[in-house]
Amino acid sequence: MDPTILAALGNGSAKDFRPSLDYHFEAGGKRMRAAMVVLCCGAAGGRLERAIVPAAAMVVLCCGAAGGRLERAIVPAAVVEMIHNYSLVMDDLIDRGELRRGRPTVRVVLGDSVALLVAMFYREVLDDLIRDCPATDDVRRIAVRAMKEIIDGERLDLLFEQAGREDPYLLKNRIVQPSFDLYLNMVGKKTAALFEAAGQIGAHAASANRHVVRSLGLFGWKAGLAFQIMDDVLDICGHKTGKQQAKDVVEHKLGNAAIIVALRFLSAKKRSELRRILSSERISHKMVSRARAIVGETPAETDCRQIAVRYMEEAKKHLAALKESSYRQELSRLAEEIVARSY
Amino acid sequence: MDPTILAALGNGSAKDFRPSLDYHFEAGGKRMRAAMVVLCCGAAGGRLERAIVPAAAMVVLCCGAAGGRLERAIVPAAVVEMIHNYSLVMDDLIDRGELRRGRPTVRVVLGDSVALLVAMFYREVLDDLIRDCPATDDVRRIAVRAMKEIIDGERLDLLFEQAGREDPYLLKNRIVQPSFDLYLNMVGKKTAALFEAAGQIGAHAASANRHVVRSLGLFGWKAGLAFQIMDDVLDICGHKTGKQQAKDVVEHKLGNAAIIVALRFLSAKKRSELRRILSSERISHKMVSRARAIVGETPAETDCRQIAVRYMEEAKKHLAALKESSYRQELSRLAEEIVARSY
Repeated sequence: MDPTILAALGNGSAKDFRPSLDYHFEAGGKRMRAAMVVLCCGAAGGRLERAIVPAAAMVVLCCGAAGGRLERAIVPAAVVEMIHNYSLVMDDLIDRGELRRGRPTVRVVLGDSVALLVAMFYREVLDDLIRDCPATDDVRRIAVRAMKEIIDGERLDLLFEQAGREDPYLLKNRIVQPSFDLYLNMVGKKTAALFEAAGQIGAHAASANRHVVRSLGLFGWKAGLAFQIMDDVLDICGHKTGKQQAKDVVEHKLGNAAIIVALRFLSAKKRSELRRILSSERISHKMVSRARAIVGETPAETDCRQIAVRYMEEAKKHLAALKESSYRQELSRLAEEIVARSY
Repeated sequence: MDPTILAALGNGSAKDFRPSLDYHFEAGGKRMRAAMVVLCCGAAGGRLERAIVPAAAMVVLCCGAAGGRLERAIVPAAVVEMIHNYSLVMDDLIDRGELRRGRPTVRVVLGDSVALLVAMFYREVLDDLIRDCPATDDVRRIAVRAMKEIIDGERLDLLFEQAGREDPYLLKNRIVQPSFDLYLNMVGKKTAALFEAAGQIGAHAASANRHVVRSLGLFGWKAGLAFQIMDDVLDICGHKTGKQQAKDVVEHKLGNAAIIVALRFLSAKKRSELRRILSSERISHKMVSRARAIVGETPAETDCRQIAVRYMEEAKKHLAALKESSYRQELSRLAEEIVARSY
């Protein structure tokens, strides 16, 4: 997919802008190209090493699982990768992110205004990639729907933040009565929607019928939910040290599965304490540790892992609609790996 | 077109997000809806009152001039209006704009992060509108090309700014040897590209042949250049008072026709003085007046008006390829109005 994206970035871009457009996609450290991985995997009968962009790899695997030729999934996978990266650059602008994949973000290297222009250009390149897809109309419809969901998921994620924002809209509409339903609505849009799109797009690349499209979409959706819940658990309960601990707490994020579930178990006193920590403009290292400890006193981690496993098992059930194949097995293993992650 | 856009904003947007999406499009003050204007104009045989969004009105007029039914131009005009407004919200983020059309900008009302989400959503709505156009593939191709040009035009416009920016990319690549050619390249992308697209899109709405598409595109392109040059002249040389004087000077913009042309006439000493004013982080009211006076000492205003008139006349020549009609006359009058503007 990388060659696909790099080539697309050159279409209609000024020579002086090209390095700026390329930066975000330059590999930081070891990076397996998903398509290459999958093709080698298929050839060698080996295990899939999870690609850096799971959703893009999922497009290729779903295409194969739907009986399609993998070459037809290359550009569709690039579409999903581009959607993902476009949203990452925008997220970094919104969150003033400074590091991504261990490298300075586009906004740090170029500046906020130019990073915004880079992101805007990525959205146009996305359109070029969509036009080059087989089943281009289906891909477009799915991609635009997913983009709208991602945008709204980000809006809801921001509304879950308890401090650190000056936007009048956020101050006015901040979520103060969180619930797991509200959380699910948010992660469904923020994360699961792209995985759902990946499944559907992979199926369309294989010219699958609508039942297969639906099944692979649902597989993606539920695997995506499992993925985000696990991500949340690892963030709060993981064994990272120092500054990397509980990034979601540091960022005042109430929209985290472990936190939401913990609140249900806590006494009113400890619920208040946890909420007060998240609502503090400045959260010290000590406060982060305290928040982690409070969550740790509840069954939140186990509960969340169980919820993730349930979604994963539901996801795998949708694969039953497909013919048995090594790709179907890979998708099944991908889902299992998602919930098997630990520190 | 307004009903078209308002309806499109409701497609796939959350109820809680809708007011945020609508805000930018709510009429501030008197606002003639371009399509309504044109239809009434055609019916009454009267003169076109320039719509707030000239490029969108141009789509409708070009469709008529190419012999098409005006109803087919409604959604295409909305496409052009949406491109324009999407870029305006982004520009306001980049420039920290606080007022637009006399109202607080989206970013002031909602906050930068949420305004960014609004703009991102507008880009998705743009895709919905394109899909609803007759000649949808042509419209898409033209719209994406125009968007890429607008993005690069903004990049070049920023590179022309002589102070007030912290972006590393801008500090590193700032234009220090301006020329009229560099300026033309910039405004061609920043402004003329959308007018060119409007002409082509209007022609496609009429199912015109490629010669008519080309002619109306060139009409739009040159009218767009004339429009921006006149805009620049009015900014520097206009009789506005107080804070509204020479906004481009206040914003350190070297990318202004009157300034670029003036530099050619000035002595080394006064050239330095003008450049020094533009490069000052803080530009006082007195410095603005001084800059205006320096430009006023040169034939820049007359020169620029002449250049604009030349582009306007070239634009009108492209109309000769079309059959005589009231719409063709309207386009011709539109071009003339562009260069007839004074204070």
